[in-house]
Amino acid sequence: MTFSLHPQLAEDFHQLHALDGCHILLRRNALIPWYIIVPETDLSELDRLPDRQRQHVYGLGDQLARFVRDTHGSQRVNVAAIGNLVPQLHLHVIGRSPGDPCWPGVVWGQLPPGPDWNDAEIARLTSKLAAVLA
Amino acid sequence: MTFSLHPQLAEDFHQLHALDGCHILLRRNALIPWYIIVPETDLSELDRLPDRQRQHVYGLGDQLARFVRDTHGSQRVNVAAIGNLVPQLHLHVIGRSPGDPCWPGVVWGQLPPGPDWNDAEIARLTSKLAAVLA
Repeated sequence: MTFSLHPQLAEDFHQLHALDGCHILLRRNALIPWYIIVPETDLSELDRLPDRQRQHVYGLGDQLARFVRDTHGSQRVNVAAIGNLVPQLHLHVIGRSPGDPCWPGVVWGQLPPGPDWNDAEIARLTSKLAAVLA
Repeated sequence: MTFSLHPQLAEDFHQLHALDGCHILLRRNALIPWYIIVPETDLSELDRLPDRQRQHVYGLGDQLARFVRDTHGSQRVNVAAIGNLVPQLHLHVIGRSPGDPCWPGVVWGQLPPGPDWNDAEIARLTSKLAAVLA
């Protein structure tokens, strides 16, 4: 298949890294460290993926959760597959801490406008992510 | 360890079924088919679980997602580990469809009051769940 990122995801997220058919993206809003994993598939829900690809996405989600905790000092990590608005399968991995702009509520539909990550931060996060997942 | 359900989860959910150290619960609100899986652990995030237990929870989440789709006719299934309010580890598996009271938004913090499932429905769902997971 030819992979093509959903336009809404491309608009809202930076593409940081790709690994074994999964793309890792970072939301263009630095108020909260909000990542997603987008596997290359036309299927729309995790439980429908072939076993091997599903295990890969779950494993990558676990690694990304640890990365978020280590890198951003997040006290909780919210992990979710929702897809009510954007049908392309994507797994959210979001660092949360008391005092963040949505705490203790969820972020979906609630994130206020905020500054984007700057180029140096994106380069640093991309490089660290590639090293951790290598 | 001695397993004890968090009081908030006990208040909000029916306990339907237990399997290999995981408890499956159903929200006391029939507006939306909202299930959770509660593994017996003191750890608070999925990625911290031992490999075998983590795989078990993910596998059970996949089975429950299929159950929700088959049983309730849900068009999407939202799967999420959040835990900002209730620290006891639990995985949400929620059937969603256009026209439900929260659609297309998320359910957390947004579910209006609604009638509970009745005893016959709970018995039917429990029995079907036990059969599917057996």
